[in-house]
Amino acid sequence: MDLSAYDRVRALRWTGDALELLDQRKLPHETIWHRYDTARAVAGAIHDLVVRGAPAIGIAAAYGVVLAAREAQARGKAVGAEAMAEDLAALRASRPTAVNLFWALDRMQRVLAAKPTIEALDAEARAIEREDYAANLRMAELGAALIAPGSGVLTHCNTGSLATAGLGTALGVIRAAYAQGKLARVFNTETRPWMQGARLTSWELLEDGIPARLIVDGAGAHFLSQGLIDWVIVGADRICANGDTANKIGTATLAIAARHYGKRVMVVAPSTTVDMATASGDRIAIELRNAAEITESQGRRVAAPGVDALNPVFDVTPAAVIDVIVTEKGVIERPDLARMRAVFGG
Amino acid sequence: MDLSAYDRVRALRWTGDALELLDQRKLPHETIWHRYDTARAVAGAIHDLVVRGAPAIGIAAAYGVVLAAREAQARGKAVGAEAMAEDLAALRASRPTAVNLFWALDRMQRVLAAKPTIEALDAEARAIEREDYAANLRMAELGAALIAPGSGVLTHCNTGSLATAGLGTALGVIRAAYAQGKLARVFNTETRPWMQGARLTSWELLEDGIPARLIVDGAGAHFLSQGLIDWVIVGADRICANGDTANKIGTATLAIAARHYGKRVMVVAPSTTVDMATASGDRIAIELRNAAEITESQGRRVAAPGVDALNPVFDVTPAAVIDVIVTEKGVIERPDLARMRAVFGG
Repeated sequence: MDLSAYDRVRALRWTGDALELLDQRKLPHETIWHRYDTARAVAGAIHDLVVRGAPAIGIAAAYGVVLAAREAQARGKAVGAEAMAEDLAALRASRPTAVNLFWALDRMQRVLAAKPTIEALDAEARAIEREDYAANLRMAELGAALIAPGSGVLTHCNTGSLATAGLGTALGVIRAAYAQGKLARVFNTETRPWMQGARLTSWELLEDGIPARLIVDGAGAHFLSQGLIDWVIVGADRICANGDTANKIGTATLAIAARHYGKRVMVVAPSTTVDMATASGDRIAIELRNAAEITESQGRRVAAPGVDALNPVFDVTPAAVIDVIVTEKGVIERPDLARMRAVFGG
Repeated sequence: MDLSAYDRVRALRWTGDALELLDQRKLPHETIWHRYDTARAVAGAIHDLVVRGAPAIGIAAAYGVVLAAREAQARGKAVGAEAMAEDLAALRASRPTAVNLFWALDRMQRVLAAKPTIEALDAEARAIEREDYAANLRMAELGAALIAPGSGVLTHCNTGSLATAGLGTALGVIRAAYAQGKLARVFNTETRPWMQGARLTSWELLEDGIPARLIVDGAGAHFLSQGLIDWVIVGADRICANGDTANKIGTATLAIAARHYGKRVMVVAPSTTVDMATASGDRIAIELRNAAEITESQGRRVAAPGVDALNPVFDVTPAAVIDVIVTEKGVIERPDLARMRAVFGG
């Protein structure tokens, strides 16, 4: 499937001796690329949210390891875990909650142990990026195949090229279905409190010429009830052994509304997101972030001083309202423990 | 039931020769009262959103008619529809979508036809305000009686003293249940895109010393799933003959999530909100407002230029997920056409 016409957006570019990142904090107002030629600078960029999205963070960190090796060599040291220890620690500390970060760094460190050369590390980082793109392309094909012509879709948060090596997960499926002429309507939520939908997803879809409608998070039920949405298509931060799925706050509400109105829910995520060691969603601790993200908006106070807010980052969508989980390893319909085990073991 | 300790907030004050309105556009940052001594000025305040909430708008307009009568007298004219025609037209045009506005003006005009004196008009306007308060107090008692001790509640938008003569509808129930010591937890949504929850409801609850937690609209399912919310308690813009309820966008999503998690949904609204002439929610045309309310925030662009948004003001919560409708005329459990007719005829 050729998606090149709908694949214009990139979050990162590797030049061989530097990593360039599109500053996602400035989007959609400015498209500014920064160039980083040290591992410390890459760690800082991850920490400062220049780059976001679990796969994109993992890829950035992997290239950060290559830069650390180049720096060690420039200092006259042997490329290896010892000479690069501080840089590796800085990368590992750049976003403590990002599972993909650790996965990518572990993979790079295995290469570092087995074949400590800049060339081997460079090849591994490129492989991580290439494999992520290939997985997204495969998920896009698998997911789009499930969508009937003339459908309406709704997505939440940003799961696109900005969050990955390209195409995205849920947004990759939407790109593919649109390329195949299947989509009559595309809706995306603004995604409070960070507005990743309004700021990033809307921008990506505009860049690729895919007409979409931005709606408030609470409007999902309305458009579902009107028959304008056939699929709610979302990403995942973690998929449990029984199919329960942790994803951006607001996902569960939309998925439950879709089920109520007889519409369908598709979760799209790479197999690295599947966590067969966690039996079900009630075992997941939901991170609470700073209340100010809700009581303030763009740095200005919205709620009165003294107002208390609770700001959970994720929620858990029960497997019972998920119609299909799409990973690069295949499609799981009506997910449950048995069907998950059939694909992922455990 | 004495709710005076939880009834500190007022949206309007009538002095006998002027109407004072709390400027709700400035809340929660500033509490500024404006004084209006002409009907035109009151119409302007309604138009400019100084006052909002259907009952509060109706009360303000009723006092505006008293001011129009005073102005006619001051000009040496006889108090009556003829001398007051321009003022009455201005009040009627101040908020074309507010059903309570027309209801209150019709009531004032009947008095104007039957007994065209300032005293009679003043007494009628005060009666409209007093009856609204009495209805809210009755609903608060009826609704609170349904809530078990130790409960958690979630409300949406602002249905409080700022929107009514005092106490509010859904928020009146929460005030009464809190006064009775029944509430272990109070949550309120921020209510995109206008933020009435974050700006107004949070402020009201803070003023009355009721501890509440502000959450994003999409977080309802999360807190319901955690067992922290037992009741979703909301107001209504219109209740259809079968119990389907139009209310602020986001209500349906929350109500459906409550049903999914086995929690309950209470709609609280005066009987004037019931529209037995509309059979069901699919007969209600949902107003779309300016897309800029979503693509911008506090006057600053959020989404990229060119991004299209759809901004429905209301949604329809299906009667099937409403556990109880509370009006001042009584409580309707598991609402349907037969149970609605038993109370409201038609």
